[in-house]
Amino acid sequence: MKTRDRILTASLALFNEEGVSGLSAVDIAAALGISPGHLYYYFKGKAEIVSTLFTAYEAELALVLDGAAAAIAKPDADLTTMEIQLRILLEETHDMRFLFRETGALVAAFPDLAPRFRRVMSAQYGCVVDMLTALAARKKLKAKAKLIDALARQVVLGLSFKLLQLDLEGDAGAPRARVARAAGRLAATARRAVLAAFATTGLAP
Amino acid sequence: MKTRDRILTASLALFNEEGVSGLSAVDIAAALGISPGHLYYYFKGKAEIVSTLFTAYEAELALVLDGAAAAIAKPDADLTTMEIQLRILLEETHDMRFLFRETGALVAAFPDLAPRFRRVMSAQYGCVVDMLTALAARKKLKAKAKLIDALARQVVLGLSFKLLQLDLEGDAGAPRARVARAAGRLAATARRAVLAAFATTGLAP
Repeated sequence: MKTRDRILTASLALFNEEGVSGLSAVDIAAALGISPGHLYYYFKGKAEIVSTLFTAYEAELALVLDGAAAAIAKPDADLTTMEIQLRILLEETHDMRFLFRETGALVAAFPDLAPRFRRVMSAQYGCVVDMLTALAARKKLKAKAKLIDALARQVVLGLSFKLLQLDLEGDAGAPRARVARAAGRLAATARRAVLAAFATTGLAP
Repeated sequence: MKTRDRILTASLALFNEEGVSGLSAVDIAAALGISPGHLYYYFKGKAEIVSTLFTAYEAELALVLDGAAAAIAKPDADLTTMEIQLRILLEETHDMRFLFRETGALVAAFPDLAPRFRRVMSAQYGCVVDMLTALAARKKLKAKAKLIDALARQVVLGLSFKLLQLDLEGDAGAPRARVARAAGRLAATARRAVLAAFATTGLAP
């Protein structure tokens, strides 16, 4: 692995493990066994490392959102398809969990992250609205635009913070199991709301 | 104001403004124009200040949750009653917003906060379930236990992180207006889900 990639990989692991606030670029260099000068040759400091990791996250997310659009376009797509896509989106959050465990502090320290977080949430919102709208159009769920908007906003909130909430609730399971649990809970609101609507019409969901 | 209270008030303002990670007890003493020794006479350090502020938050929250229980018990309580109570709960989050802007980092730094966050979320969940259940029992909304559980989990997630999400979305309105907006959005999911159910039965919500 090239030194630049080693620095990014080690930084991500350290940030996810110990948080960003308490770590300096010098700490990262020490963990890698390289000199601070060597690290500064590749990155001007912690802000540039965080920004570069965020760029990688944006690229990953773009792929996952494209994948979700393709999955929901298939003729047999249903609520389970959406739950699987939410799980994949939550895997991305999990991989970059340092971003969501001290979000406010990070944005205060690195203000250029704010518009980038905004774009990420906006892209996720658009994707979730498209999934719900596609399912509604094919009678896989019964929801008008305003319900879809409200559900999508809740799901996007969950994509950022549901895993942190599970942490706080003391959910100590394996990461993959926790991601699956969070995705199930996010899909549950849509599913239950939909089932409630279906239950009153007698349509099979 | 007594020195101990002055320290707590100044600490809360500084934490909400600048975050916890970047501040030391010495910084807090400097902001107050007192010596670090003077501050240490009242608090052993930052952890004890954070813990004491959390205790005040717990006490406030207990009052608000009691108030919500009383409000929803009134015969004319409806979805608007719940929205008002959510707004009051979100005011509490806003007042203590430092806790939710770097939650993961705080819990890592001060592990005794984890079970306390858990109790707070659990109490909020119980309150929201009770409100939704009371409204359902009086036919103000149509939702079975599983939908109520899913909605309540989403609302509790929002009580912690919806204001942070609005920050990230660049919502720069006045604090009170932002709290009202967040409460409206939290209530919207329940309201829309409920309206969807009502729309199919023809009952007036």
